Amino acid sequence: MTENEMREFLTKAKKAARILAAADGGARSRAIVKMAEMIEAREAAILAANAEDIEAARSAGLTEAMIDRLALSPKRIGEIARGLREIAALRDPLGEIQDGWITEDNLKIEKVSAPIGVVGVIYESRPNVTADVAALCLKSGNAAVLKGGKEAAKTNKAIENALQAALQAVNLPADSAALLPDGSREAVAVLARQSGYLDLIVPRGGEALIKFVSEHARVPIVKHDKGVCHLYLHESADYEMSEKIAINAKVQRPSACNAIETLLIDRRIAAEFLPRLAKAFAAQKTELRGCEETRGVVAGIRAADESDWSAEYLENILAIRVVSGLDEAIAHIAKFGSGHSEAIIAQNYAAIERFLAEIDAACVYANASTRFTDGGRFGFGAEVGISTNKLGARGPMGIRELTTYKYKIYGAGQTRK
Amino acid sequence: MTENEMREFLTKAKKAARILAAADGGARSRAIVKMAEMIEAREAAILAANAEDIEAARSAGLTEAMIDRLALSPKRIGEIARGLREIAALRDPLGEIQDGWITEDNLKIEKVSAPIGVVGVIYESRPNVTADVAALCLKSGNAAVLKGGKEAAKTNKAIENALQAALQAVNLPADSAALLPDGSREAVAVLARQSGYLDLIVPRGGEALIKFVSEHARVPIVKHDKGVCHLYLHESADYEMSEKIAINAKVQRPSACNAIETLLIDRRIAAEFLPRLAKAFAAQKTELRGCEETRGVVAGIRAADESDWSAEYLENILAIRVVSGLDEAIAHIAKFGSGHSEAIIAQNYAAIERFLAEIDAACVYANASTRFTDGGRFGFGAEVGISTNKLGARGPMGIRELTTYKYKIYGAGQTRK
Repeated sequence: MTENEMREFLTKAKKAARILAAADGGARSRAIVKMAEMIEAREAAILAANAEDIEAARSAGLTEAMIDRLALSPKRIGEIARGLREIAALRDPLGEIQDGWITEDNLKIEKVSAPIGVVGVIYESRPNVTADVAALCLKSGNAAVLKGGKEAAKTNKAIENALQAALQAVNLPADSAALLPDGSREAVAVLARQSGYLDLIVPRGGEALIKFVSEHARVPIVKHDKGVCHLYLHESADYEMSEKIAINAKVQRPSACNAIETLLIDRRIAAEFLPRLAKAFAAQKTELRGCEETRGVVAGIRAADESDWSAEYLENILAIRVVSGLDEAIAHIAKFGSGHSEAIIAQNYAAIERFLAEIDAACVYANASTRFTDGGRFGFGAEVGISTNKLGARGPMGIRELTTYKYKIYGAGQTRK
Repeated sequence: MTENEMREFLTKAKKAARILAAADGGARSRAIVKMAEMIEAREAAILAANAEDIEAARSAGLTEAMIDRLALSPKRIGEIARGLREIAALRDPLGEIQDGWITEDNLKIEKVSAPIGVVGVIYESRPNVTADVAALCLKSGNAAVLKGGKEAAKTNKAIENALQAALQAVNLPADSAALLPDGSREAVAVLARQSGYLDLIVPRGGEALIKFVSEHARVPIVKHDKGVCHLYLHESADYEMSEKIAINAKVQRPSACNAIETLLIDRRIAAEFLPRLAKAFAAQKTELRGCEETRGVVAGIRAADESDWSAEYLENILAIRVVSGLDEAIAHIAKFGSGHSEAIIAQNYAAIERFLAEIDAACVYANASTRFTDGGRFGFGAEVGISTNKLGARGPMGIRELTTYKYKIYGAGQTRK
């Protein structure tokens, strides 16, 4: 796509965004319910398109894990439709009066939530994201520009057809949710440069994608840089809980950005806990890498070097470091953490409150797995992405995070002195 | 400054930011009160430094208007100290529980305000900004990296000395508020690239400065792109109020970004209002440029061309366009407005509410001058800048806008299924 073609495409999205911003919440929610109905009604067409994508993926030699991410079934289509209905049922995030006051000039100011405008989301293979993101954007009055993985192109197109048919059925513009017509990397680079036409870009995927979009972006970007998450076992930690959460946070889905990469443990409990933990991880085939002290109590594991503390393995590998206490744990996380999700296991109230207050991350957990950093688990219905930004959305990004605000000022003829 | 020198400098600021984030609100407020006392105690030294800057400015041939912006006096120093005490007295913006709920997994989630980290602010000549920004950042738990105008270098240094003496007197790190040691444009470019060291950059000044920083920024940036603000006179407008507000919004300080550039007026009242308005503006020596219809009722003014509708004059020039009604006014502003401040004058309730709801701008006014878009007038004590961003801070940026948030999640051993 040339610069001009992109601008033409985005101008249509911008026009749709203006109509959505002025539409009432009921109309936006009804459109999402209609989307769910259309997805169900067109199940056969969507599955046929998906079968073509899967066949092409097999010929191209994609792994079974990748094909599983891509594959739809009547059950998964039902889940997509149910997800849309959940989003439709959420409270309207627009027009919320977040604050209000009277100034010294006797102006009445209201701070009111408002849509962002045109939101571009770049994602990888799971085709349910197409429907989720379109619905989250619509619910929050934004137009969505979608770019899914190449391997899901036909499936995404079939879903887009259903979504746009639903929009037209309720007299909202079809351009409210549109796939980028050109799925190339170059088109993504052109898109990311369109300040004035695109209000926000969200790269949702692996490090390479995020880096690529960051390098080209001239529009605001919401992303997570990396997911280097820690689990810290305080000396007051319960052992059973520590084991259960450590295994879950590392093993349940190592490829997720909210899985842990490093376990920190207090010196006072290391000799007691670490051998038992090592045994539990061995049963999960987790590769452990330890600091000197760790290797002193757990035989036969590889030495962790400096690069391990900042590694995002995204695999079933865990680095372990013994620390002298809370201060050293907080300092380690401040140095190596990526500001995503950090957890403490402890019974000590003061230690928990200090950890939660002082750790600078989107999500800080006491006595729970970091794997809960997720729009669905947070109760947001779904998520556009997870952010480690400190400007705008932070953490899981649902409909409220897809809004900005404006100040409405009600006067009676005031002029500035 | 080399890349390495900059990183060393920012590492000290980052360390200070961690200490500020953990300090309680009382300590941060007491430090600001101490800053006010130190500014007063060192009045003679600050005025002496200022006299040197003014002399250099005179030799360099700066205009009297620029010298007036630069000049301090005992009265202005008193105002700086009073401003600091006002900021100290504001409610602590940190640790505010903005939302809280229990999830389906029985996790208790709290959304809590938190500091951003290290904030860089680039500004021009007024030296009071040095104290204002340092105090706003300190109140919100952020470390401030300051870069003022070259012409105010000695004054800013004297103010920095007072601020840092205050910080040390209350045992907070002097690096909490520090001037960039190198005031060159190149140093600003190096600063703007330091993602991982700097969390936010705010260019506060003219279009050239903002453009320069935007081009180099690899860290999140808060800025206003332009201030193309409109005043729309609806057919239900009161004439006296319209004249008073139009004159104030254009003439009181034409160089401000919240001054209007274009006046839109309904056709039904144009023949009655425009000749009277033209006379009022003539008394203010305002240059008017009009559309065809405007020129039909006001003789002898220059024709506005397409470029006038998007011009930010920053001078005593006003473009005037006759519109058919609210729809055309909203469409004009959507096309040409910069999302800063937009105003309607009307008595009609429905017209006012539609204008405030549909115009996409940081501040939308009914029956008041756009000149109120200002942290001080909003009641924020002062402002770091005014933003037309839709991600993060929008409009005047005070202490609450210098915060992000994090989620604190309280569990009882939950793991992800």
